[in-house]
This record gives sequence, structure tokens and C-alpha cells, in this order.
Amino acid sequence: MIHLIKIGGNIIDNVDLLKDSLTAFHHLYGGKILIHGGGKIYGKVSEILGVSSYFFNGRRITDDVTLDIVTMTYAGLINKKIVCFLQSLGCPAIGLSGADGNFIKAFRPSLKERNYGNVGNLSKKSLNLTFLNFLLEKGFIPVMCSITHDGNGGLLNTNADNIAANVAESLIQHHKVSLHYVFEKKGVLLDLKNDNSFIHKMDENTLQEFKKKKVIADGMITKLESAFLALKAGVTLVKIGIFIDKKKYGTILTLTKRKIWQKK
Amino acid sequence: MIHLIKIGGNIIDNVDLLKDSLTAFHHLYGGKILIHGGGKIYGKVSEILGVSSYFFNGRRITDDVTLDIVTMTYAGLINKKIVCFLQSLGCPAIGLSGADGNFIKAFRPSLKERNYGNVGNLSKKSLNLTFLNFLLEKGFIPVMCSITHDGNGGLLNTNADNIAANVAESLIQHHKVSLHYVFEKKGVLLDLKNDNSFIHKMDENTLQEFKKKKVIADGMITKLESAFLALKAGVTLVKIGIFIDKKKYGTILTLTKRKIWQKK
Repeated sequence: MIHLIKIGGNIIDNVDLLKDSLTAFHHLYGGKILIHGGGKIYGKVSEILGVSSYFFNGRRITDDVTLDIVTMTYAGLINKKIVCFLQSLGCPAIGLSGADGNFIKAFRPSLKERNYGNVGNLSKKSLNLTFLNFLLEKGFIPVMCSITHDGNGGLLNTNADNIAANVAESLIQHHKVSLHYVFEKKGVLLDLKNDNSFIHKMDENTLQEFKKKKVIADGMITKLESAFLALKAGVTLVKIGIFIDKKKYGTILTLTKRKIWQKK
Repeated sequence: MIHLIKIGGNIIDNVDLLKDSLTAFHHLYGGKILIHGGGKIYGKVSEILGVSSYFFNGRRITDDVTLDIVTMTYAGLINKKIVCFLQSLGCPAIGLSGADGNFIKAFRPSLKERNYGNVGNLSKKSLNLTFLNFLLEKGFIPVMCSITHDGNGGLLNTNADNIAANVAESLIQHHKVSLHYVFEKKGVLLDLKNDNSFIHKMDENTLQEFKKKKVIADGMITKLESAFLALKAGVTLVKIGIFIDKKKYGTILTLTKRKIWQKK
């Protein structure tokens, strides 16, 4: 089983929670991969540098200066701090952008909709599976940031959740894969004010109910939809929630069982 | 023969010269390693962020904020831009800090002289030679920035010239090694105003003469002294100067031949 752990910005900004998550990651048995997004540090740096943020459809418009700041903070500061902490635990981590070892080659989206600038979309051929399998076989622990490249000398800002799903879907060709989206809550909450109201299991019907009742936030809906796609593609276990050693938290996603009369 | 190419800040700040140097690097036959320092980008970012630079004995005092900026610019922006360009040439580059794969473990200097903060000194045990040999055997091209780690979760700012010399001295145990310190001049110049006045070969006697006559700058003297140490340690070829495809520039350092009457 390969464990794919994606940690989001809210964990990265909380030093204690980050260290707890990385320690839990270190204690996972078997092959494992860490994928991280950014944190507030991007906003802090860009604010001081006087660079404004523009979003369209939830996606950051990444001009050249923005790309430089994203590369500095994600591939530089955050990635190396994570690797350095994991190494101090004895975990043979290697920090990687998509350019290193030609790990992830992405492509710029079509200009039809909007010019997003230096952002990368992923395809089934994006991941260099040979390189990843090679690292895993040799016992290295890849720590991936969300910067990819276009193969023509351009770095590309890429969504970390999408990278996690893409890597999972590529890996299932050769391995059993579990995918854990780590964030600061114990799981998907029924009541946002009560951290203990997390549900242990949910299927897509539950998600549809939640959407109707508007129980959960838009960002979580996007994450869950992407997570259900990974589950349906063949990922063995998909989990969402906090990731702490020896504590059984997290919401496990399950495939919806068809009722008998739905069968053809 | 393993080629060790160290490119300095003056090359990194000149996009054309950087691309020419990286192209020449790509065309080198056999195992090769690139080591890079920083460039003016560090100064630009720290100036905008309002962080002052302090030096003592030519060494940057690296407090926590300075370390963050160094990590962002060296391990993030510069390293990934170099790797991304090399990949576009078809060169299987992997960008690495000293933390990645526990590549270079350094130690903080004694506090007796001065508290330099988060800076790293190197020892004979600093380089993870197993990891380096493994990368070289597999045909990967390491691109090393001058950030190391202490093994206890701390990143350390380290002199890139020292890393180059340290890697060279470790590699000579198993390989023939050539070491090229790349900077923007054709070689060591006799007349700083005339770029064609570079000398083709020099030994330590020449260096002593230059020091007496004050022909060359202090920074170059330090570089040359470090380069002569590498040569005496057993590095096969040590060269200093610009690095462009098919053009024969550069000053080659040679060991001083003892005269017969100096022999014991």
C-alpha cells in the first residue's frame, strides 16, 4: 500500500499541527508520498512585495511575478522546512518540484476561457511514474510541492489537490493506494461549530444531501468531489481530516452501494 | 571524470550568460554536478522586505528571517529556474538542498568568534557520498544550492564555494574530478579593464606575485586560495573563468613544480 498524504495550507500555517502531521506521516508503514500546498506565507510575502492577488473561478491568475513568489515560498521555504523536519525524524525525504527529475509535466490551459498565466493543468501522462517508482523502490520519501513545469523551460503553478488525485490515479496501475486529504478538523463536520460532530463514513448520497441542505462549505464540496472521483477511479481508501498519530479521526469516503432494483 | 561546475551570483544575475553556461554544462560528457550560489535576487527581496544585511569577516550573519529569504531565493526561485531550464534541454537535472536525501549535513560554527546565526560549516563527513554516487550512477544531474541542514530540523546558509571544494574533495576518493569555478570574466585577468588579458595557466607562485603587486581583487584571492587547496588535495583539473560552449577560455591552475635544489 502506498500512502498519499496531501496537507493543505491551514496545516502548514500551524507549526504544531504541521509537526504532528509530519510525525504521523513518518510513522506510516510502507511507501509514502507527501504533497503540500502553500500557506499564508505566500500572502504575507506578496503583500509586502506589493503584488495583488487575482482569482477567476477559484484559480489564482499567475503572472510572472506571482509565479516567482509561488516558487520561492512553495518550492523553497515550505518544501525545505518540511524536508528538513522529516530528516530530523530519520525520514529519508526528498523535496521535489515537478521540474526535478521531470517529475510532473503539465500544460497551460486553453486561453479560450481566460488567461490564467503560468498555471498548469494535468493529464494522464503528466506524472513521471518511472521516476516515482524508482524513488519509492529505493526507500526515498518524495515531498512534492505544487509547482510543475511545461518541459520548455517554464514553471507552472498547479493545484495541490489535483496533483494528489493525479498521482493517486497514476499509482493505482501498479500499487494499492490510500489517499488522505489532511486539514485541521477531525473530519467532515455536521456542525461547523462542534469539532466532535465529524462523521466517520460518507458516500456520494450523503454529499448530495449536504449540498442540498448547505451544511458544508463550498471549498469542502470541491475537495470531496475530487476525492470521490479518486475513489471511483480505484483508490483503495480515501480519507479526509486531521492526521495525528494513534488517534482515529477522519471521514472515510465509501462508494455508494446500488440498491438491488437499480441493477440492470 | 566527474565535472563539478560552480556558478556564482554574477552569472545567475545575467540571464543570457546563465543560459549559455547551463547549455555548456549540458554538453559536458559524463557525470556532472552543478553548484550555485545566490544572486542579486536575495538583495532585492530582502530590501523590499526591509531586512538589513550584516556581514562579519565576509560572512553573512543569518538570523531566522534572513534564513527564510535565503531559502526562498536559493532553494526555491534560483534552483527551480535552473533545473527547469536544464530539463528543457533534455538534461535530467534534480534540484537539491542539503536537507534533501540528507545530502549535506553541516554544523554551526563555534560561538566563540561571533554568532553568525544559521550558517553551516562543512567537515569531511558532511557530504552523503552514497546518495551522490547513487544519483550519478543512475544518470541524474544534481543541481545543488547552498542551503544545508544540521540534522536536527534546522536549515543552514552555507558558502557555495566551500560546498564545491568539499564535494570535490569527497568525490576524489572514487572518481577523477574536474572543478570549474564559473564567473563572468574569461579567466584571471592581468588587467581588470581588459577582458582579453586573462592568463591561461597559473601556479601558487603567480598567486603570491599577484598578491604582492595587488593585481587581483580580494574576492578572487579567496576563490583562488580555495581552488589551489582543492588542486593540492587531488582534484585533477581546476579551472576559473567563463564557461561557454566550444570556446576555450578560463585560467587553469597548476601545482608549483619544486626546483631541484628545493628537493630534500
